[in-house]
Amino acid sequence: MASVIERVGDLDESQIIDRIQRFLCGTVHTEVGVGDDAAVVRAPDGRVVVSTDALVEGHHFRREWSSARDVGWRAGTQNLADIVAMGASPTSMVVALGVPRDTPVQWVMDFYDGLSQVCATVGAEIVGGDLTAAPVIMVAVTVHGNLGGQPPILRSGASVGDVVAHTGSCGWSAAGFALLQHGGDLRGDAPGAPMAVVERALAAFRAPTSPFVHGLAAQHGHARAMLDVSDGVLRDVGRIATASGVGVNLDDPLTWYDPQPLMQVAAVVDEDDPAYVVRQWMLTGGEDHGFIAVFPPDVALPDGWTAIGTVVPPPRTPSGPCGGAVHRVRVRGVETGEMGSGWDHFSGSSGTAAT
Amino acid sequence: MASVIERVGDLDESQIIDRIQRFLCGTVHTEVGVGDDAAVVRAPDGRVVVSTDALVEGHHFRREWSSARDVGWRAGTQNLADIVAMGASPTSMVVALGVPRDTPVQWVMDFYDGLSQVCATVGAEIVGGDLTAAPVIMVAVTVHGNLGGQPPILRSGASVGDVVAHTGSCGWSAAGFALLQHGGDLRGDAPGAPMAVVERALAAFRAPTSPFVHGLAAQHGHARAMLDVSDGVLRDVGRIATASGVGVNLDDPLTWYDPQPLMQVAAVVDEDDPAYVVRQWMLTGGEDHGFIAVFPPDVALPDGWTAIGTVVPPPRTPSGPCGGAVHRVRVRGVETGEMGSGWDHFSGSSGTAAT
Repeated sequence: MASVIERVGDLDESQIIDRIQRFLCGTVHTEVGVGDDAAVVRAPDGRVVVSTDALVEGHHFRREWSSARDVGWRAGTQNLADIVAMGASPTSMVVALGVPRDTPVQWVMDFYDGLSQVCATVGAEIVGGDLTAAPVIMVAVTVHGNLGGQPPILRSGASVGDVVAHTGSCGWSAAGFALLQHGGDLRGDAPGAPMAVVERALAAFRAPTSPFVHGLAAQHGHARAMLDVSDGVLRDVGRIATASGVGVNLDDPLTWYDPQPLMQVAAVVDEDDPAYVVRQWMLTGGEDHGFIAVFPPDVALPDGWTAIGTVVPPPRTPSGPCGGAVHRVRVRGVETGEMGSGWDHFSGSSGTAAT
Repeated sequence: MASVIERVGDLDESQIIDRIQRFLCGTVHTEVGVGDDAAVVRAPDGRVVVSTDALVEGHHFRREWSSARDVGWRAGTQNLADIVAMGASPTSMVVALGVPRDTPVQWVMDFYDGLSQVCATVGAEIVGGDLTAAPVIMVAVTVHGNLGGQPPILRSGASVGDVVAHTGSCGWSAAGFALLQHGGDLRGDAPGAPMAVVERALAAFRAPTSPFVHGLAAQHGHARAMLDVSDGVLRDVGRIATASGVGVNLDDPLTWYDPQPLMQVAAVVDEDDPAYVVRQWMLTGGEDHGFIAVFPPDVALPDGWTAIGTVVPPPRTPSGPCGGAVHRVRVRGVETGEMGSGWDHFSGSSGTAAT
């Protein structure tokens, strides 16, 4: 029986691969692409940087909140950001995609469209994949990068006196999630928040934009440590502090960027204490995919980077959750344990988990 | 509240990573391992072979049929086999693992144990991963390989007159699946099938053993084309035929190997026509992870390889399913379309799909 909407279960795997073939035709980094047992990718540096990350429907996204293009864009962004955070240029990716049999074929096409669009922003090529049936949509992307002869930028290079800097969106993904949870009609101006601000927050959650250019510039800006902010600033700064054996003193988040737009969103979801809500979003909200890097105190920050704190000696008793990571980070000199440490997929106790 | 069995949801991601750290400590191929945004893997050839493949609970395995160690072993095997089928040596892999929150932590440990065991058989190292919550267990493995200066062995190199050869298990995974579907008490001798034969079939389904050594030897044995048999001999030989623009005439499967053990299993599930069942298993059963390669007619086959057919000119009208792949392959000169083309995850019309 023909259905009006073509479903994945109506086709066999090779027919679906034919449809997505046009997203899989890179030549710069790809020596052998899709169609054999494996792809062959160029690695002129003699090393390859590799990272994998998964998105699961109901846990990381909901189809009623995010389009297929958004999910593809977001899956690509979070993976590409991990490569850039190592100081490498993304070259190629492979994609394992599981979908229910009744998923429209168009969903798969749009997913690949979003994925290939974000890849195009950094010149990365999709070189292969796997498509299988699954009870919910699940995406696992593995991405590769080229260090171009430079050493990787690890989390462990921070020294006391260094400047902690941020680039990209901060708190906006959490704000968008809060708006979606809050519900209501967000198409017009929300009370106290102009439509442009509401849309910026929703877009940050659905299809976050990572500042790849600024991330790549950190290598030449002499960054000593860097990471992708995926689990919230507090937790991710804590990871640099732990790996480097230092402490970090962060400035008040409300001074990092103009807080007014986020305050307007916060007023929609919590009229009582928007400043508290904004600090929470900026410190513990996940999925923004900005970068945090540590620079020597005597170099000018590259374009697009904002100083948000200073590397200090470690506290005397760095214990507690995350190997003491949280307790290594203070905001305006105050311990931050009570603010929550960021987003965890399993404990889900804070942040933007879409579970 | 403490539970007697420790569940994944009781721990945060970093605590779980601590537990599996011992499986992630390679040094031969790994320059930077787990613990940063990405890993750095050596690629001395200046190219890297890459493949990704997913397993989803309920579609590719069931927890009541397969142990966690089996699932890890199988996920590793199918991915490593794709690299070997390109004529490359596996070097490293990354793993995206999604599990329900109530999954015992021990399941995750055993999964990594099985995965690392199969990696050890070829010297590959697990260099990173992602762990997330999911409604069912889903595994996406991406594996990398080193061509060591040699060209990749593609599917497109077969010429008329070449010998088609097979190495590894053939039909045994399908036999094991059929036994599990058949049900009943398989712990003693099944009617007509000795316990050793029953156990061989069950093991082939639960934890297939790929003949990596023979696959790697094909490179030096001058193989002109090669692939991993994951979707059944008929479909996979058809892929070589299509990519190479040739036809293939296969010998009767009952002559490839001693058919008696499989006939004994077939007698358990179908007393009427075990020869028909065995041919079906051998031609269309998936998930055995043997290799098929094409060798020039004038070289001796490497150890462990068995001739199963000959490359012939293509049929005059190569049309039909799979771009005519099925119609390019004949068994004893007879078209094989009516036998089914192998295993497809979506259509699931034949073979060993555990859906």
